[in-house]
Amino acid sequence: MLAVDRAGARRGRMATGHGVVETPAFMPVGTQATVKTLLPEEVRATGAQIILANTYHLMLRPGLETLVAAGGLHRFMRWDAPILTDSGGFQIFSLAGNMRVREKGVTFRSHIDGGHRELTPELAVELQLGWGSDIVMALDHLIGLPADPMAVRDATDRTHRWLARCIDAFADHGGEEQAALFGICQGGIDPERRRDSAAAIASAAVAGCAIGGLSVGEPKVVMAEMLEIVAEILPANKPRYLMGVGSPEDLWMGVARGVDLFDCVLPTRLARNGALFTPTGRISIKQRRFADVHEPLDPECDCDACTQFSAAYLHHLFRSGEILGLRLASVHNLRFLANQIEAIRQAIEQNAFVSAHANFLSRYRPIGNALIP
Amino acid sequence: MLAVDRAGARRGRMATGHGVVETPAFMPVGTQATVKTLLPEEVRATGAQIILANTYHLMLRPGLETLVAAGGLHRFMRWDAPILTDSGGFQIFSLAGNMRVREKGVTFRSHIDGGHRELTPELAVELQLGWGSDIVMALDHLIGLPADPMAVRDATDRTHRWLARCIDAFADHGGEEQAALFGICQGGIDPERRRDSAAAIASAAVAGCAIGGLSVGEPKVVMAEMLEIVAEILPANKPRYLMGVGSPEDLWMGVARGVDLFDCVLPTRLARNGALFTPTGRISIKQRRFADVHEPLDPECDCDACTQFSAAYLHHLFRSGEILGLRLASVHNLRFLANQIEAIRQAIEQNAFVSAHANFLSRYRPIGNALIP
Repeated sequence: MLAVDRAGARRGRMATGHGVVETPAFMPVGTQATVKTLLPEEVRATGAQIILANTYHLMLRPGLETLVAAGGLHRFMRWDAPILTDSGGFQIFSLAGNMRVREKGVTFRSHIDGGHRELTPELAVELQLGWGSDIVMALDHLIGLPADPMAVRDATDRTHRWLARCIDAFADHGGEEQAALFGICQGGIDPERRRDSAAAIASAAVAGCAIGGLSVGEPKVVMAEMLEIVAEILPANKPRYLMGVGSPEDLWMGVARGVDLFDCVLPTRLARNGALFTPTGRISIKQRRFADVHEPLDPECDCDACTQFSAAYLHHLFRSGEILGLRLASVHNLRFLANQIEAIRQAIEQNAFVSAHANFLSRYRPIGNALIP
Repeated sequence: MLAVDRAGARRGRMATGHGVVETPAFMPVGTQATVKTLLPEEVRATGAQIILANTYHLMLRPGLETLVAAGGLHRFMRWDAPILTDSGGFQIFSLAGNMRVREKGVTFRSHIDGGHRELTPELAVELQLGWGSDIVMALDHLIGLPADPMAVRDATDRTHRWLARCIDAFADHGGEEQAALFGICQGGIDPERRRDSAAAIASAAVAGCAIGGLSVGEPKVVMAEMLEIVAEILPANKPRYLMGVGSPEDLWMGVARGVDLFDCVLPTRLARNGALFTPTGRISIKQRRFADVHEPLDPECDCDACTQFSAAYLHHLFRSGEILGLRLASVHNLRFLANQIEAIRQAIEQNAFVSAHANFLSRYRPIGNALIP
């Protein structure tokens, strides 16, 4: 850790085989070996230092063999900075068919060709090391909420047993020479289970601790509570990664509770729907009111979309169904989040996180869920 | 003209309000104020000097008023090189509903909102001058082929009367101060009518002569014959623009018959379908055989897709439905055509067009229609 604000927000630095990541950091998602609509250099230019790719997608297409033949994932997609890959678990639970969990692992049917597949803790590690991830995630057992307390306990305990197997597999393959292994804290929204799980991950031989199973529909106040519980238990000297979180307000909220890393498809998915972040909240660029705004959408923003084009042009591209609109919106939303993260890092360094957070909250009006400071 | 090869191929230079165009030239199509999937600087980097935009689309969306408020089409879309706009006629005939031609002009229903609209020769000129086109096309009367000889004559004669009205409107609006007006030769595939129409355009007070109504399904040998007919009649000192033509083999064929300018959606539309040009012909990047080609698709090509990424990655992007694939394929196909055009220009300068053309034909295998040298 480089600095910890008196509010508990952390400023750190994480070394990987493909360079250093300044934290807090937001990781754009490159699901299928591409951050949707963008070239690697464009993603980099938004300020992203590290991206996430999805093991579930990559194992099915193009597959490990092709990625190895290509010289690894970095070379295949031409991204020469760090890559974190998830374990594949989340997509198996959300995308695949016929999912069945046994102690050995998960069996499922590919959403692409319906073929029977299996993922075990060992295979999850082998795949991620095989294509050259910098940060390897352990396989965890997710369950949908609300769930029976016994089911939550069962899944959480299995997550811990699987983590032990991932640690062994990682060691057997000499993983430490190329990558870092992160464990994932589960436990649903039951404070007791969360505490147990955080303790299990805290005591495990992992390089970083992820917080999974949140931001899946629970009220934000509950997510905040869970973060506060795990923050007290996780080791202070390891990076903390809140999975699947990426709205501007949630970045601030998470950092306030000690989170170092985030990832989410939100900024790029919203962008492709024409929903763009601005300092006062999210807008829909498709709305009629932008048809004749011959100025940048966000005059404070230094992204290519805002410095080169008008809101009226973005509006026209979306109304006309033009792909360039999806690109420019993606660039803008990623740059907007990177600018938030840069402001957050600077505030922590100056021990001024609380006032910077208050400043953000005084302007930004989130949609839907209530705002948790 | 800078040079005319002994074969009749022409090398020229065309001055516009936004710079000089070296001819022969291929114009990428930016239908709705964007060359699909690409930023202006990317289009420019493929070697394009001038683009085409569609009056039919622009008049409906975003409309003249918005384009004027934006400071013109160039500024709206951030393209600071020359723009040619068509007259709107072709899309009215192919896209709009309830189309009806009267001597005054064409009435139709917008394909976007079904609203009743009208386009006259005068309005076509006013629109194009209004948003700042560098080359303004006269409104012509197109008819589908095959057609009754009387209908062809009627449409061709109307095209000539409308051209006279366009010339007047262009003068009335001081068009010459900002733009050049091109007339369009019609006449279907009837040699007599083509000859008449070429003579009418040749004697008109226009800056350039377009050849319309070809490449609409007729055999290529017929298109070649029509080009040979008009080549003898059109004035040698004005640019000749073959509308809607853009396959690699047709560029060579057209230049061999004295054509200076081309436009077509073909390279970018094919690209979005995964059909890419190579020196030996068109391929489908979706084919299984590219899944493990960890080399550039076209090692001779200097485009970003070929210099930065492998054929296997392009294949993966298309198989996965990723937009980045559409972008890279568009860049490649436009660069491929620009490289053909550069080779053509160089060959003419060296008085070696015939052997360069033969060299192209000896390698490139076109799909479908027979190859006309």
